[in-house]
Parts: sequence; C-alpha cells; structure tokens
Amino acid sequence: MQRILNNPDNIVDEMLEGFVKTHGDIVKKTSHPRVLAAVNAPVEGKVGVVTGGGSGHKPAFIGYVGKNMCDSAAVGEICSSPTAAAFLDAFKAADGGKGVACLYGNYSGDNMNVKMAVKMAKKEGLTVKTVVANDDVASAPKDQREKRRGVAGEILMWKCGGAKASLGGDLDEVIAAAQKAIDSTRSVGIGLTPCTLPAVGHPNFEIKDGTMEVGIGHHGEPGIEVCELETADKMAKRMTDIVLPDYPFESGDEVVVLVSGLGATPVMELYVLYNEIEKLIVEKGIRIHKAYVGNYFTSLDMMGATLTVMKLDDELKELIDLDCNTMGLTQV
Amino acid sequence: MQRILNNPDNIVDEMLEGFVKTHGDIVKKTSHPRVLAAVNAPVEGKVGVVTGGGSGHKPAFIGYVGKNMCDSAAVGEICSSPTAAAFLDAFKAADGGKGVACLYGNYSGDNMNVKMAVKMAKKEGLTVKTVVANDDVASAPKDQREKRRGVAGEILMWKCGGAKASLGGDLDEVIAAAQKAIDSTRSVGIGLTPCTLPAVGHPNFEIKDGTMEVGIGHHGEPGIEVCELETADKMAKRMTDIVLPDYPFESGDEVVVLVSGLGATPVMELYVLYNEIEKLIVEKGIRIHKAYVGNYFTSLDMMGATLTVMKLDDELKELIDLDCNTMGLTQV
Repeated sequence: MQRILNNPDNIVDEMLEGFVKTHGDIVKKTSHPRVLAAVNAPVEGKVGVVTGGGSGHKPAFIGYVGKNMCDSAAVGEICSSPTAAAFLDAFKAADGGKGVACLYGNYSGDNMNVKMAVKMAKKEGLTVKTVVANDDVASAPKDQREKRRGVAGEILMWKCGGAKASLGGDLDEVIAAAQKAIDSTRSVGIGLTPCTLPAVGHPNFEIKDGTMEVGIGHHGEPGIEVCELETADKMAKRMTDIVLPDYPFESGDEVVVLVSGLGATPVMELYVLYNEIEKLIVEKGIRIHKAYVGNYFTSLDMMGATLTVMKLDDELKELIDLDCNTMGLTQV
Repeated sequence: MQRILNNPDNIVDEMLEGFVKTHGDIVKKTSHPRVLAAVNAPVEGKVGVVTGGGSGHKPAFIGYVGKNMCDSAAVGEICSSPTAAAFLDAFKAADGGKGVACLYGNYSGDNMNVKMAVKMAKKEGLTVKTVVANDDVASAPKDQREKRRGVAGEILMWKCGGAKASLGGDLDEVIAAAQKAIDSTRSVGIGLTPCTLPAVGHPNFEIKDGTMEVGIGHHGEPGIEVCELETADKMAKRMTDIVLPDYPFESGDEVVVLVSGLGATPVMELYVLYNEIEKLIVEKGIRIHKAYVGNYFTSLDMMGATLTVMKLDDELKELIDLDCNTMGLTQV
C-alpha cells in the first residue's frame, strides 16, 4: 500500500487538523472533534443545513460545508457513519433558530444515527427534518427507490438545499427543495479498480484487470454487472442507458450533469468521458444547463467514474446557479 | 491499464472537447486546435499572459486559464511540449496590444518551442517576454538554478503574473512580478508509484512497493534518493528539509504553501501531510499566509505529492490574494 499516513487509526483526526488549517477561511472546528462548521455558523434566522457521512470520499462531506451550501458536517471513520452524538452536535452547530435540514445519503449506519440524533434533538427543543438521498439507480429497482443508495447526486441536493436556506427559505421550503433536487436526480458508477482502506492495507474487493464493474457503490458495494473494460464511448453509452430512462430524462428537458472521478482516475479521462456523455445526452434533445466534471465524490484510490443527471425546473436552476464557496465547489 | 479512453492517440483532442464543453463560461476554443483562450481574451489594453506544456498534468496547464490568471495556453501531447506554432497562436490569442508574458516551465522541448515562437512573433510585430519556472529544488544544485525544472510553483507564478496584468501592470511589470514569484518559490516532490501513459499501457519507470522516490519529477524524472516508504511526518520533515534551507525560508518570513497530489493519492492523505508540514514550518517561526492543498499539478495516475513554498512581500501577497476563476483555482 503506497500511501501517505502516520498511524492509520488517526488518519481521520489528522486529516481534519490539516483541513481546518488549510480552509480556515471557510470552516471551523466545533466543540465536537468530529464536527466541522462553516465559519459563520450558526446564522441567526437561517435554516441550518447539515450533512455527514464516512470519511474517504473527499470532497464529500466536509468539502461541501461553506457559503451557500452546508452549515456543518458530521464526520465518520473511513467508510463508516458518524455517531448519533456527532450528528446531534452538527445540528446544534448549524441551528440558527429556524430549524435544521439534515441532508444525507441512504446507508444503514447513517439512517440509524441520524434518526437517533433527530430524536435527541427533539428532546432538546430543536426541530430537525431530513432528506435521504437515493440517486444510485443501480442499487435497487425503480419500484424500490427507497432502498437505493445516495451517491454523487448528494452534492446537487446540498447545493439546492443550501441555496434555498441562504435565500431565506423556511425549514419546509428547504426540505422541499432538497427533496425535489434528489427526486430529480439519478446516478450510476463504473469501477475500474478497487480501493484500499489504510487500516486494512489491501483491497477488500476485487476488480480484475481488463474488466469493469457497472453500478458499483462508493464503498465497493457490488454492481449489476462485471464486464470487459470498454472504451470511453461505450462506457458513456452504458451509463446514459442506465441513468436517462430511469427518471426518465427526455427530449426538451434541461439538466445538470455531474461526472465525478472515484479518486485515482486521471482528470483528463473524466473530460474524455464527459465528451462522450454530452454527445449522447444532446442527441436525445436534452439541454445541458451546466456540467461539473472532476473529483467531486470519491472512494479513496478507486479508479472509475460516476455519472449524475438532474432535471431542472426554474427553482432548481436558480438554486444551482447561486454562488457558493466550499473546498469542493466554488462557484462565482 | 484500467483507464477511461477511446483511441489513446486522440486522448488530448477528446479531453479538450470535453473541457471546453464543461467550462464554456471560462474558456473558449481558438483557430488553433491545441490552443485554448479565456472567454474574454484578448483584453484590449491588458498584457496577455500565456502558458503551455504537455498534457497529463491537469489542472495544469489549461486549468489555469481564466479570470485573473492566464489568457491562453498551448497544449502538447501527453508529457510532451506544445509546438512552436501552438505557442505562437497562444500569444496571438492573448495579445491585447500591450505585449505578451509567456510564463512556462524549464523543460527542453518547451524552451525550444517557446524561443522559436517568440522569434516568429517578433517578425509579426508582437513583443513577447518570458519567465522560465525553475522551482524544483531536487533537479539541480542551487548554483545551477537555471537547470532546475519547473513544477507546481508555476501555479503561483501564473497567479502572480496574471493578477499583475489584470491590475494594469505593463509588460515589464508583469514579467518582473512573475519572475519575483518564481524566484521566491521552491518545490520538491515525492513519488510513491509510477504513472502509465495511455499510449504505452505500462509504467515507463518503477517505484517498488514499500519504497518512495524523493525529488521525482512530474514526468518520472529520477529523484535524488530512493528510500523506504516513510510515515507522513517523516515525509513532511524530508520535504521541508529540502525546500526551506534552499531559498532559504527563515523565521519571520511570511509564505504561501501549496501541497499538490500527483494524481492518484487520496486527497485526505494530502491533508494529513499538510498537517505535518504546517507544524514544521510554524515551528521555525515562519508564518503561513495561505495554504493550497489538493490536486493542483498532477502526473496522470502517479501517487505521491509535492510541496511548494513561496516567500511573500507586500506585492506578491496582493497578487496571491486577488480573486480568480479557473477550472483549477477559483478564489473569491
């Protein structure tokens, strides 16, 4: 394992130290060592927007804390949910007196800990409502959408929910905007290599050279098919064939497209992939309002990429277009 | 080779297509297929700022074209200089009537092609002056600084030169600011794995598991020492011990620190490394004005990281702090 670390058991804490030292203009520590908050949080009279999740997905999750996105984030161990106590303290760090919207991904640990934290918050008089992201098409059939995992579509959910809160939306409006954002969003991933957890030292799953895993999850959750490694144009076709019919995205729609690398794939290849994806989407008469291409939601040193498509209406377009300033996404 | 591509021979052109489709608000195509320019280039009455270099280092080089950084960039094949004709057309795309500053890295191909392009430009009545970056401490002894390669310090050179031009500096002032920026900057890299050129299909050099190469170049140029893979704190010590005494950076200095991944190293590890580097720098009484941590100048799928330190004076601080908007660096 060729990696940069000290004791693997301390990697999350040390990463957080380095993160706050680097981005002290955007985030700050809180009284909970596993909770970071935006420098100006809590903002009096604004709905607090909170997220959280396991580490190893940078920029997710702390990389989306900052201006016009999330007010705080709870941080878990690598590929492991933050504790309920961390979520609770993240709620408190974001609470500006108008309630808190917790926008997170559909994983069993996160579901359990968020639910506990919401109950604990209620006892303390703090209202928290939640949206659970489930944009990963390959993780369950469409009629079982509630079982689907949340992946890179979460970024668009945070963007829209965070923007709505900054624009003065009340808690129900923020929740509605974030829910609409994720309901309008579909994703799929293709894995080309496994990733290695520092504390383990070797991959905990396998993707053989010359093959790729379609529908792989952000933690190496099994996909829907292992097939021969394809060229970028065929990968793009496969990804759009899974994502577009599921919503469905159709001629006349206006969308945001997000192509994220899984960590170790060179960024130039993400542009090659997006070049093919764009052609296929435009061919269908769908208009791309905005594209994001880069390492937006990763899985340590996994190679591969995810495609996320979100259908816009006037409200979502305004929210997507609002400026923001976070480690993972700065928009002017 | 687990990578996302079509025909490897077309990867640069396809990447450029995807890049322009993604960042159409920042860059545009020009009449030369291997030259991209900022959407508003050329700006009448402003010194044009140009760079260029081989592909595979994203965000470098085209990722630093945009507001308050470079006006255009010439694009080469992977790890190979752009042609003289591409540099010439990049000069023309950036020329707003006040001359052009070409700020590039010290590699033989780039040197040759830039010099030819400058001569060709002169014949056409266009004044181009150059700054050659040579921040890589490990690539030659201090008394042969002119032989040193340019690496991630180039980003700070583009930042300062681009800002000076935007603030109304004339050609000599822009050249002086960029020259001061790179003269005040030192870098070193540590490689943990080799990278694979898509057209080759296997690494063209080796870094054995359990070892690391100190002083490695951005194209796998040999470093100064191959040693056992160390923990992050020891790597940080080794990097600062090479970089700090060379300028030298000393107690009372104010600096910018840039830690860039080489491509495939998980970003969380860069924060772990920066956490150690910051301690060592602060211990010496040096003040860190600003830190950049991320994948700012990469080498395809190489694992490892570079450290760059730049000493600030009032002018450089103003230039570093100016807002900018490029694919690789957006600062508000």
